Amino acid sequence: MSGTSDGVPRVLETAPERYRHWRLAVDGAVARLALAVDEAGALQDGVALKRNSYDLGVDLELRDAVTRLRIEHPEVRCVVLESALPDVFCAGANIAMLARSSHPLKVNFCKLTNETRLEIEDATRTGQRWIAALAGTASGGGYELALACERILLVDDRRAAVSLPELPLLAVLPGTGGLTRLVDKRGVRRDLADVFCTLEEGVRAPRALEWGLVDAIAVPSEFGALVEREVAAALAPVHASHGHPTHGSHGHPTRAPRAPRAAAGLLLEALDPEVTARRIGYRHIRVSLDPERRVAEIRLAVPEGSLVEMLRLARELDDALLRLRFHHTELGLWLLRVVGSPAAASQLDRELCADSWLAGEVRALWGRVLKRLENSARSSFALADAGACFVGPFLELALAADRSYLLRDADPPASLELTPANFGAYRMGNGLTRLETRFLGAPALLERARAASGALDAERALELGLVTEALDEIDWGDSLRVVIEERASFSPDALTGLEASLRFAGPETLETKIFARLSAWQNWIFQRPNAAGPDGALRAYGRPERAKFDWNRT
Amino acid sequence: MSGTSDGVPRVLETAPERYRHWRLAVDGAVARLALAVDEAGALQDGVALKRNSYDLGVDLELRDAVTRLRIEHPEVRCVVLESALPDVFCAGANIAMLARSSHPLKVNFCKLTNETRLEIEDATRTGQRWIAALAGTASGGGYELALACERILLVDDRRAAVSLPELPLLAVLPGTGGLTRLVDKRGVRRDLADVFCTLEEGVRAPRALEWGLVDAIAVPSEFGALVEREVAAALAPVHASHGHPTHGSHGHPTRAPRAPRAAAGLLLEALDPEVTARRIGYRHIRVSLDPERRVAEIRLAVPEGSLVEMLRLARELDDALLRLRFHHTELGLWLLRVVGSPAAASQLDRELCADSWLAGEVRALWGRVLKRLENSARSSFALADAGACFVGPFLELALAADRSYLLRDADPPASLELTPANFGAYRMGNGLTRLETRFLGAPALLERARAASGALDAERALELGLVTEALDEIDWGDSLRVVIEERASFSPDALTGLEASLRFAGPETLETKIFARLSAWQNWIFQRPNAAGPDGALRAYGRPERAKFDWNRT
Repeated sequence: MSGTSDGVPRVLETAPERYRHWRLAVDGAVARLALAVDEAGALQDGVALKRNSYDLGVDLELRDAVTRLRIEHPEVRCVVLESALPDVFCAGANIAMLARSSHPLKVNFCKLTNETRLEIEDATRTGQRWIAALAGTASGGGYELALACERILLVDDRRAAVSLPELPLLAVLPGTGGLTRLVDKRGVRRDLADVFCTLEEGVRAPRALEWGLVDAIAVPSEFGALVEREVAAALAPVHASHGHPTHGSHGHPTRAPRAPRAAAGLLLEALDPEVTARRIGYRHIRVSLDPERRVAEIRLAVPEGSLVEMLRLARELDDALLRLRFHHTELGLWLLRVVGSPAAASQLDRELCADSWLAGEVRALWGRVLKRLENSARSSFALADAGACFVGPFLELALAADRSYLLRDADPPASLELTPANFGAYRMGNGLTRLETRFLGAPALLERARAASGALDAERALELGLVTEALDEIDWGDSLRVVIEERASFSPDALTGLEASLRFAGPETLETKIFARLSAWQNWIFQRPNAAGPDGALRAYGRPERAKFDWNRT
Repeated sequence: MSGTSDGVPRVLETAPERYRHWRLAVDGAVARLALAVDEAGALQDGVALKRNSYDLGVDLELRDAVTRLRIEHPEVRCVVLESALPDVFCAGANIAMLARSSHPLKVNFCKLTNETRLEIEDATRTGQRWIAALAGTASGGGYELALACERILLVDDRRAAVSLPELPLLAVLPGTGGLTRLVDKRGVRRDLADVFCTLEEGVRAPRALEWGLVDAIAVPSEFGALVEREVAAALAPVHASHGHPTHGSHGHPTRAPRAPRAAAGLLLEALDPEVTARRIGYRHIRVSLDPERRVAEIRLAVPEGSLVEMLRLARELDDALLRLRFHHTELGLWLLRVVGSPAAASQLDRELCADSWLAGEVRALWGRVLKRLENSARSSFALADAGACFVGPFLELALAADRSYLLRDADPPASLELTPANFGAYRMGNGLTRLETRFLGAPALLERARAASGALDAERALELGLVTEALDEIDWGDSLRVVIEERASFSPDALTGLEASLRFAGPETLETKIFARLSAWQNWIFQRPNAAGPDGALRAYGRPERAKFDWNRT
């Protein structure tokens, strides 16, 4: 992974044999993932990644490991997350890196780290249980990483501590879900959480246990044995693990046991897209970049074939979304097109519903990619014209989009079809299906959609409320041009706030709280002179001068 | 109400006989509240409040009317909100006023308007049902005001429209709950909401009805009759009102019928605090201002007496909180002290539990004031030392605070006592009691608190998790000085985000979504150059030049 001066790598995918910062070892049902950040391996010149602090490069490797553990190593049922350095688990995001990063990079970096930590929780819920073994201090984003694990073990050596020192040290928030996980996931009492977040030095083992910040502690000589006991408990059948109450389960579906697996995993091949100034080309996806109109078109071709190709398509879309987020921040509108044969889409839909581990993993991955789309700060329109194929799992893309436009009487016709997959297989971050969210105020429409079978023509799709507008051939070009130009002319910031508010009606979960509530506050704080200004705390860190604050409260 | 150059009036309370912008007429069970903004009555010099647009002064009058309708006019069961100007209902917040306002004023203004609209919804739920009668256009905050009513009626005259044009016109969000109410309260489909929010000119009657933006429409000659029918339906017993389904009830408790009332209301006397540079003095409350330490102390004395004095105390605290928010933005930490006789507090607590309309209204008001405290962007510590009286409803103040400190063995002792009031009478915006939120991760602690009766000494209060720390006399002064100085030294912005994240664990409601999710995004957008910069849309509005945008999406 080679860095650029702006701190964003040109290639976002990686593989264990190329990791610079993590060591992954799989031994039967147990994997150990150890952080050993290469200080000299930062993406930005002049940044030293000391004390296991991380930048985007470190986190892209973690993302890769989380995905590979699920798909390449289905036999793994417990992952021990630990450090390979003495006395430190992880010091969080590197501060020099943050201080040099542009606002969009900071925000996109935080978003990716948040998504990856939610993926760790998703893996835990589906039976690959993550344990954070803290043989040294976990501070800031380091403790937030531990918070994403089901269990947190801390060594009691009178030195190691857990801490969230962002507020006192840097005048920003713990930006990776820490605040939400403290009170909403672990149920830490709010006044103790308040005290904790103001203690630069954090809290050591006995009090951390008392306040619910960690789940178990042990002196150094017994720490290894504690970890082994926890691993054994994680591997035991679910009924035997009553010793591990889950803290505050609000917003968390109950953990499902993972079926024992004989199957070997599936090796993830490199995606290696062809990249030019105006195009990113994958096997199943073509992204066309149009900087003049500030638009990207993402065209997916439904694979003719097996789950393995569907898996590849999902990975390609994920890679494309991240590339668009990091490399093309000016392209504010994404146009989503799916083309292909409805028969092939239906066949894939059936295979995705199978009761195999692979089908489950591909479904889960497609669900995560759809959520990544919804959590992207970009407008999205789905376009269904000649040859379009929005069937079942592919229809979810249109339901995830801010708007959808359908061409009447297209030739070949645009295929729209609801399948059982649209009623539960791919849930949004708010815990509802996209149709439940869409019809929150009109449950009768949800029932009508449930009863609709077979291909839907334009009138039927409109009547069912599945598309925003249906246009005749004669209007298609001009009307779309106008709405696309209009969308691309609005303020990017206002659109981000608008979309974040309209996309997620209904209940909130840990996940939606992190992306909307916590991230929105952090975005605001990252802009404030008290943090990011020339005299702000983020810029003053490590310098002799103290930060200067505007004391007005807002 | 006299303005100052910064757009904030020195006196925040008002009364109908002094209204400049509203006309309130009560006739039996029906009140009509008509907006007729005095263009020349803006708080800021050089701002003309055209087309029923509002500033803080207009909204403070609305707040007064909402409160007086409940307490002075308990006989009112239906409020018709309308305009006294032709062709326009309300054009929302005045743009010139917004463009000239400082960031803290914009944010605090939006917060108050949001609170008042939630109070309208609270009144509707408890049986004083609000109907918005739009005989003309409602745009921006004007439509958001209508959205706070249970029913929205729009004239169908081919001109009048409802609109949220903030994004296309000003590059900001509809900042008064509009986005949340569209999709979460009214259940408007998200893609239609998306289209609606990009239409500068808005949507006229037939389509507004079709999209669920309004509840009923009528041509001009029949509009009066429509309003009368709706009023009659609102006055009918609840069983007869099935014709009025409530849109998307997510986050909204079921509407309770209001008991018929023979009682006459209670006239609200003026509070008229004595105000000096270092003190705001009320009958029951004294606020000490300490700009050197950036701290305000709010000292409440439990009234010896009746509900009428408790009502006054609640109004005093409400006025004090608003004064601190608007006039003293640099005082970042509020210290809360309650003193008085535990016997008097218990007596008031019993009276508050009574089944009378007055008890109900005082309870409701105290609940709203507690929520105003929690929604304030200030840190708060409750201090219980000699003579402190945190009993029942007054204990809620300590539970609302970010931290609480208790002096051991004080003389006279600090009284802490749980009463049934702490288990349901005063709910937070998230729908839970403060104790339920506090013990979200530890339901057993909630049950222990429920079983605790009588005065609690320091050990018991600590053990029950009701206070953050108990200090000996010898440590009290020094320890408090240190934590107070420390708190006042942190970045105000980071504290605001921290507190907004830690205070509201658990479920989310329309209310918490508005204050955290929507307001956080709006705070961010209000800071962005695309809106508020020299070339931003908010500043460019009404000028010949177009706004210039940075096209990067974040």
